[in-house]
Amino acid sequence: MASWIFRAFKSFLALAKSGRSVTEFSKAEQEVLQRILMARRDVRGNRFSRDPICEEDLQTILRAALWAPSVGYSQPWEFVIVTEAATRKQIAASFSEENARALPLFQGEKQQKYQQLKLEGILETPVNVAVFYKQSGKPVLGQTSMPEPGEYSVVCAVQNMWLMARALNIGMGWVSILDPEKVKYILNAPPAYKLVAYLCLGHVREFLEQPELELLQWERRKEMGEVVHRERFE
Amino acid sequence: MASWIFRAFKSFLALAKSGRSVTEFSKAEQEVLQRILMARRDVRGNRFSRDPICEEDLQTILRAALWAPSVGYSQPWEFVIVTEAATRKQIAASFSEENARALPLFQGEKQQKYQQLKLEGILETPVNVAVFYKQSGKPVLGQTSMPEPGEYSVVCAVQNMWLMARALNIGMGWVSILDPEKVKYILNAPPAYKLVAYLCLGHVREFLEQPELELLQWERRKEMGEVVHRERFE
Repeated sequence: MASWIFRAFKSFLALAKSGRSVTEFSKAEQEVLQRILMARRDVRGNRFSRDPICEEDLQTILRAALWAPSVGYSQPWEFVIVTEAATRKQIAASFSEENARALPLFQGEKQQKYQQLKLEGILETPVNVAVFYKQSGKPVLGQTSMPEPGEYSVVCAVQNMWLMARALNIGMGWVSILDPEKVKYILNAPPAYKLVAYLCLGHVREFLEQPELELLQWERRKEMGEVVHRERFE
Repeated sequence: MASWIFRAFKSFLALAKSGRSVTEFSKAEQEVLQRILMARRDVRGNRFSRDPICEEDLQTILRAALWAPSVGYSQPWEFVIVTEAATRKQIAASFSEENARALPLFQGEKQQKYQQLKLEGILETPVNVAVFYKQSGKPVLGQTSMPEPGEYSVVCAVQNMWLMARALNIGMGWVSILDPEKVKYILNAPPAYKLVAYLCLGHVREFLEQPELELLQWERRKEMGEVVHRERFE
């Protein structure tokens, strides 16, 4: 009799556990995620307000990064929170140099458009975050045939940050027009670390309804039929 | 008088627009995202049920990929949905070869643990999705100083898929123990395309409460203090 009660109690516990909201998401919750995914924008300097980001929001964004998937659970990410003006001015100088180098690669109308674009918010945002990949000294499960999944894990962390920031109504911009070696030097990064992303975070005056480069007709949105193939490439 | 009414109407429209739920997320919506981020798992073969994925859910997951950020709005992603058993057997054979090659890289207790791990669900899931990076022939805005953001954009698309799948209560596993050139050959991919991820998607019997490799004490979870630095590396 006692063992019957014990078994019934165990089943009840198992059921209670399986019904927990963490394990099963509802239609309404799926739609929340969809709206966050769709509303996320790459925010540039001219759209940021100058309001500070509170420490609690910054922690929430970084915690989202730490929940990212990583190859072999290696968690090969390192983050540097940059707020000092002197450091950011050095980073912004690297952007200016690299951006000037990029301009002549674009021709005619594209070059004119490129010149008018504001492509970063290094000085306009209260917080920058440099994100690095730290290679493990040991073999990593899942990284033995392809080396890239280590860096890719760090990118997943960046995307988690982007979505969490957007849910907090905080804008984020990813600056990739930088000399990664100069950024490493400025931030005193160990030689083996690789710069994956340089992020600018701040409150915004507005989130655009569409990506800015779509609005400016720099590129058009691709349709699903153009990029999804069945079974194999033709 | 007429112009006053017109201006009032315009202000009303602007206000109605700025109050739309897409632009401002609530505390409750932030918590939904946090719960999805935390509940996402890398799902392996032994945890999948054999239930099919309906076309609507597959479309929802792919649509999430297309909302990902991309450098210079280049959207450099290509997806191949693989369901045919013959194709998947060829992919699984590449996994077996590569996994056998990986085993001797791990020593002692790690090697024993490695041998017991089920690291993919290529045949156990109803749908596999191979995700490729398609390099643009033209210069891409934001990709002129660092070449990697093209591939990184594709990784952001994969992370969007992972989160959307989890919200739909569908499991996803990322298989990286593969010879990318063999996968390209099997799927008839153009030479210039690069395999970024090979994904296995299916309904699950359970989502683990913690990452499997944490439960198995393969690796421990890193604390925020270990990976977050202030202003620069010491």
